[in-house]
Amino acid sequence: MSDAPDIDAVTRYLRKLQTRICRQLQQLEPRARFGRDAWRHEKGGGVTRVIQGGEVFEKGGVNFSRVGGDALPAAARELRARIRGAEFEAAGVSLVMHPANPYVPGCHMNVRFFLAGARARKPQWWFGGGYDLTPCYGFDEDCMHWHETAARACAPFGDAHYRKFKRRCDEYFYLRHRNEMRGAGGLFFDDYRDGGFARAFAFMQSVGDSFLDAYLPIVERRRAVKFGKRERAFQLHRRARYAEFNLLYDRGTQFGLQSGGRIESIFMSMPPRAEWQYRHRSADETRLRKKYLQPRDWLHPKQK
Amino acid sequence: MSDAPDIDAVTRYLRKLQTRICRQLQQLEPRARFGRDAWRHEKGGGVTRVIQGGEVFEKGGVNFSRVGGDALPAAARELRARIRGAEFEAAGVSLVMHPANPYVPGCHMNVRFFLAGARARKPQWWFGGGYDLTPCYGFDEDCMHWHETAARACAPFGDAHYRKFKRRCDEYFYLRHRNEMRGAGGLFFDDYRDGGFARAFAFMQSVGDSFLDAYLPIVERRRAVKFGKRERAFQLHRRARYAEFNLLYDRGTQFGLQSGGRIESIFMSMPPRAEWQYRHRSADETRLRKKYLQPRDWLHPKQK
Repeated sequence: MSDAPDIDAVTRYLRKLQTRICRQLQQLEPRARFGRDAWRHEKGGGVTRVIQGGEVFEKGGVNFSRVGGDALPAAARELRARIRGAEFEAAGVSLVMHPANPYVPGCHMNVRFFLAGARARKPQWWFGGGYDLTPCYGFDEDCMHWHETAARACAPFGDAHYRKFKRRCDEYFYLRHRNEMRGAGGLFFDDYRDGGFARAFAFMQSVGDSFLDAYLPIVERRRAVKFGKRERAFQLHRRARYAEFNLLYDRGTQFGLQSGGRIESIFMSMPPRAEWQYRHRSADETRLRKKYLQPRDWLHPKQK
Repeated sequence: MSDAPDIDAVTRYLRKLQTRICRQLQQLEPRARFGRDAWRHEKGGGVTRVIQGGEVFEKGGVNFSRVGGDALPAAARELRARIRGAEFEAAGVSLVMHPANPYVPGCHMNVRFFLAGARARKPQWWFGGGYDLTPCYGFDEDCMHWHETAARACAPFGDAHYRKFKRRCDEYFYLRHRNEMRGAGGLFFDDYRDGGFARAFAFMQSVGDSFLDAYLPIVERRRAVKFGKRERAFQLHRRARYAEFNLLYDRGTQFGLQSGGRIESIFMSMPPRAEWQYRHRSADETRLRKKYLQPRDWLHPKQK
């Protein structure tokens, strides 16, 4: 069997993944429903599915896109300087959930495939992806479950995968200007081609398929926790950090903007509401930073 | 009399300007008061004055800073590539107001001075600054007053000043990814040295001094306009644009982050609250975009 890169096979997987994830998340949400916008925009198209004003999910989106262009945007090129200027195609699913209850952590998931220079003698291709958790109020139990699920998804593909991609996640989701991690981490991989196309694709699928196992139990466990004004205010404060990361650092956002993407789909990741207060200080933040916005070993946590 | 650049003289002016502006804005605000934080941070210091939770001003800040460093950050260097690497000092006052009432436009003002290579035989120096208005609900009368005041401040310094710096303002406060101007413009100048130090300094002072004349009458005219949920929601939606501009494009923010500035002072400009809704559409937005987020001739407006 050929091991040539097959972006159509990846696309078929991604579309099914989007459908499956939306269906499962929808089952947790009694009030709002995922919409469905199919779009075409310049050299690409996609399906954006957004839920807004829910009881469980204040806002969230699951976006599938397949885009192309004559030159790979800089944001996709950091590790790929040698294919500067090549025409490319990219397909991906990207998800962000902003739950209503401050005790339910937000999350982000993305799996993507790039094919560059397809008309050249030797096309370049690679997978990227991962998922990360963004609590306002952390729970060791949730972080352990999240990371254990990630580790299980990685295990068949190499002993060091989880450790390596967990570390990259800690490094990537980091707000330099605040010297602060965005959340409690997870997985982040890029430039991934281990074992050839079929094997690398299988790894991406294993990560994609494990996302619901990682997230749903956490939502179910926390969705009915009582909260009041203090927790809501803290959540809105933390969402400002999320907005800062997306606009200042996120390569997915920058890739979208640089590739002339559909703004509404790129910005579906933005929080529904965020607050910037001058000199916010709170015990909630001190605890969150000290215990959860740290590169901890969540498979063997020490009590902190 | 020597026409050598004198950053201490500029600093004295800027500190008085900050005090004067805060005093006058405070007189409009019955509930909240401007705080006062003097700070030192790495190679600089300043005084940050923020007001939050007011009846007129939901959030606003007037920041004075004087910072230095061994190498001019990239964000200050766009027009000054030839002095790459030079040690520098910069002094400025920066102001952002986010009014509570959606009918009162927000505004931004900045005046600044750079001195680079002070120890070299021929130091480089320049002024920059300006002010711009950000309405949610526009009024021709307000925009005309704002621009007329700006034009009067420019008039003694050259026939083309207002026209040139008004155009630069329209170009600079522009969100590429949305193909949309941030607001109704005003003045934006940079790299300004016309006529030598004393004369250029006088121009900067003329701009700085005219700010209150430009803004206060507008606040007074609109502060008591009745508004409801629709207007408030639209205001929060528009504030997301403001956050996008600050984090994606604003050179002042980037200069602050690149020069290792004090985060709380840099981010005082962020809106108190912002909302990102997927596929927001409203008649209010259509009207705003069509009539006010356009490079119009506000000295001789045609009816639109």
